Formats: sequence, C-alpha cells, structure tokens
Amino acid sequence: MTTPLSESEIAHHLSRISSWERSNGEISRRFEFADFAASMRFVNAVANLAEKANHHPDIDIRWNKVFLRLSTHSAGGLTDLDFALAEQINALG
Amino acid sequence: MTTPLSESEIAHHLSRISSWERSNGEISRRFEFADFAASMRFVNAVANLAEKANHHPDIDIRWNKVFLRLSTHSAGGLTDLDFALAEQINALG
Repeated sequence: MTTPLSESEIAHHLSRISSWERSNGEISRRFEFADFAASMRFVNAVANLAEKANHHPDIDIRWNKVFLRLSTHSAGGLTDLDFALAEQINALG
Repeated sequence: MTTPLSESEIAHHLSRISSWERSNGEISRRFEFADFAASMRFVNAVANLAEKANHHPDIDIRWNKVFLRLSTHSAGGLTDLDFALAEQINALG
C-alpha cells in the first residue's frame, strides 16, 4: 500500500477517479458547497475517513470551498493509500 | 464593527492579543496539537465561534497543525470583527 506508484499506475488510477488533479507528488480536488456549515460537515466526514485510514489529507477551508491534497509523505510520492482515500472521499458527495 | 481600522488601532489591538501576526490586510496564527483528532476538535470549536459571529477565518489543517487567517474582505482590511474573533479563539486554548 505504501510503495510509490509508477507513472503508468498513477495514470491508471487517475483515469478511474473523477475530478482529482495531479501536480507533482500529490493529487488534489476542490469542492464547493452552499455555505460554511456545509463545508464543515464535509470536512468532518473526510476527517472520519482519514482517521479510519490513518491517512490524512491537507485540508484548506475557504468558507464554502474546501481544497484537499493527498500524498504519502513517508513514501515520498503517491501510493495506493492516496487513491483509496480519494475514492472514499468522492463517494461522500 | 466593519469599518477598516487605522494603523494605530491595529497596533493597539495587536498588542492586546497574543500570538497573532499581521501580514498586510490580515492577521494569522498557527496552532499545534497532539494529533489530527485534536486539530479537528479545535477546528470545530473555531467553526462554532465563526458561525455565531458570522465571520469566518481561512482554515488550513496539516495533521496536528492548524493555521488560521482573519480579515474582513467586505471592508478591504482588518476590522474589529477580526480582533473580536481572534480573542475568542485564543480563549479556546
């Protein structure tokens, strides 16, 4: 799970999860909600998934917008952990 | 409450609240906790204060670190709203 993925593996994963963008060693997605309270409900749901996975995205909250960034620092790049969590986060929406 | 503060008013407020730094039209503070769960408890407490004040900081969560930034966009700078919320947030700690 924590082995850095190859370029072709990353390309394969990216083709399967919608709306996430890759930049260098991380993947990110921007979410937009009705208001701050809705952003916070989403962030708490993400936090629950993150704790269960013991894998935590960087989270930026800007009122009704939430920006998530995932990478596996311990592996120095993207791993299955990142794509597994991204997939779970997408399923929240 | 939403009139931009003068330089001397800002200096006065800054001298009264500990640990916040000013950069241009905003004030910011970095908080550090034991772990991600503790960060999330703090962020939810901040979110409650923000909703009551109808004034919302930018919030960046980095596992056990939380970075808050306050400014009054509608006033184009710092107002009493920012310092009132900063004071309430300091009282959480």
